[in-house]
Amino acid sequence: MKKINHVLISGGTHGNELIGVYLVRKFEQAPELIAWPSFKTLTLIGNPKATEIGVRYLDRDLNRAFEPQALESAAPTQYEIQRAKEVYAHFGQEGKLPIDLIIDLHSTTSNAGLMLILDNDTPFTMQLAAHLCRVQPQLKVYSSANSGRNRDSLRSIAPYRIGIEVGPVAHSTLHAELFQETEKLTHAALQYVEQYNLHHCNNPSTAQLENVLTIYQYVGAVDFPRNDQGQICAMIHPQLQFQDYQPLHSGNPLFLTFDGDTITYEGDSTVYPVFINEAAYYEKGIALCLTQKIVHRV
Amino acid sequence: MKKINHVLISGGTHGNELIGVYLVRKFEQAPELIAWPSFKTLTLIGNPKATEIGVRYLDRDLNRAFEPQALESAAPTQYEIQRAKEVYAHFGQEGKLPIDLIIDLHSTTSNAGLMLILDNDTPFTMQLAAHLCRVQPQLKVYSSANSGRNRDSLRSIAPYRIGIEVGPVAHSTLHAELFQETEKLTHAALQYVEQYNLHHCNNPSTAQLENVLTIYQYVGAVDFPRNDQGQICAMIHPQLQFQDYQPLHSGNPLFLTFDGDTITYEGDSTVYPVFINEAAYYEKGIALCLTQKIVHRV
Repeated sequence: MKKINHVLISGGTHGNELIGVYLVRKFEQAPELIAWPSFKTLTLIGNPKATEIGVRYLDRDLNRAFEPQALESAAPTQYEIQRAKEVYAHFGQEGKLPIDLIIDLHSTTSNAGLMLILDNDTPFTMQLAAHLCRVQPQLKVYSSANSGRNRDSLRSIAPYRIGIEVGPVAHSTLHAELFQETEKLTHAALQYVEQYNLHHCNNPSTAQLENVLTIYQYVGAVDFPRNDQGQICAMIHPQLQFQDYQPLHSGNPLFLTFDGDTITYEGDSTVYPVFINEAAYYEKGIALCLTQKIVHRV
Repeated sequence: MKKINHVLISGGTHGNELIGVYLVRKFEQAPELIAWPSFKTLTLIGNPKATEIGVRYLDRDLNRAFEPQALESAAPTQYEIQRAKEVYAHFGQEGKLPIDLIIDLHSTTSNAGLMLILDNDTPFTMQLAAHLCRVQPQLKVYSSANSGRNRDSLRSIAPYRIGIEVGPVAHSTLHAELFQETEKLTHAALQYVEQYNLHHCNNPSTAQLENVLTIYQYVGAVDFPRNDQGQICAMIHPQLQFQDYQPLHSGNPLFLTFDGDTITYEGDSTVYPVFINEAAYYEKGIALCLTQKIVHRV
């Protein structure tokens, strides 16, 4: 693999996820914090209009707007389609300043703790993930490869990309500890790129540490129970709320109706839910995402 | 005091506070749950358009739109002004169906736990609060009398009114346990009204239990530190986050800057913060509200 020349740190891809917005602004005011000798680091507020008014998006979710076919066919009057075209023209692989690695900063109302989002298993990505897990042992690694995010997210325009997702944080709020943890992970990722450029890419035979990497891999999503009018009929069960990454077995409580009845999970196999009760997913028909826990040697 | 004839349970005064919205919908589908012999209970979705699209409000905060003077002078094209006039014409004291008691249901991203909001100290209100504290000992009582809410809130149109505020809940999400606690408190309030109608208002000499009622009384608000452009320069300090109702002494940490510097509270007296890091208050210039803790005998 060739050297990484350009890294982009993006925040505000969703305008009401304030940790990324304020961290990008901090870096823009003090670019020396993210400067490294072997590559150039750039910053981006993904959705500036949504950030300005403090909402996730204006017309549609920017982080689902980057599929090339959709970009061509979608309503050009939608602000996020215009914005996706701008970002793609600037930072895409045929653009003015092609980016090698995007680090996209997010927060969630679910109990994500510190989550790294991958969408592919290239050696660079897996080694970067393993490095970040060594630096921050509480980090959980989630793969969204099967969810479509590897084709339509903002970061999908770069050959290498990670998301940093922290929670629980109410949208439109800051959270000091998770701000600092996001910043530490971002710096650790940049440090890895520097090491990679200096050593590994010039000398691929250099032995890498053998790592065990546990990945929570997306296998599907579950919607809230709804009535004929599409209205939600039940809530995340108290025993499931904030239990992200914990095993969910067949027969375990999933939802609680407004009358107090429990609805259980009836899947065939044990799964590991993530994004439980994420505010922005209600409209997408997602109450939680299900993952399989897979241990890789990388 | 005369008998209470009409009680209004309102939710969705803020359209993204889902616990109130779904509890009102539940009651609308099963009105027998809130029916009592001596009075009539009605329900209201305060801001139906905001509820439909899942935002706090469209043009302005409905829960600050009911001051009679403002209603006359405000821009009539604002949706919430139109809505406030409608609600006032229907349920106000000169309206078609004057309401004696409003129970308004809210949620907050701050660690409110179970909070009862009062804005006056009439004997009925204080006795109702004492009753609810006996039923639910975890309940905290907050008085917003000094904050203007007794003049401009939706519930201010009734002579008797309480708010039930629960948290922490991310806006645009449900939370099963706090939904159930809100429902229990609502039922306990209705039960008190029934007792009051049957016994006390016909026989004011009936001895009430003597109660001690601790009230957290609003004394002011603190904004986030901001730069010349009005942008926030610091976050709620990790040692203050979620510490609602805990004493804040001079010299205690208040904010943490993005560079990691602590800003301390330098007030003269010990205060008890509430609404710490409420998402909807960023735009109002409020990082937290300060209260004094006062013990009343009622």
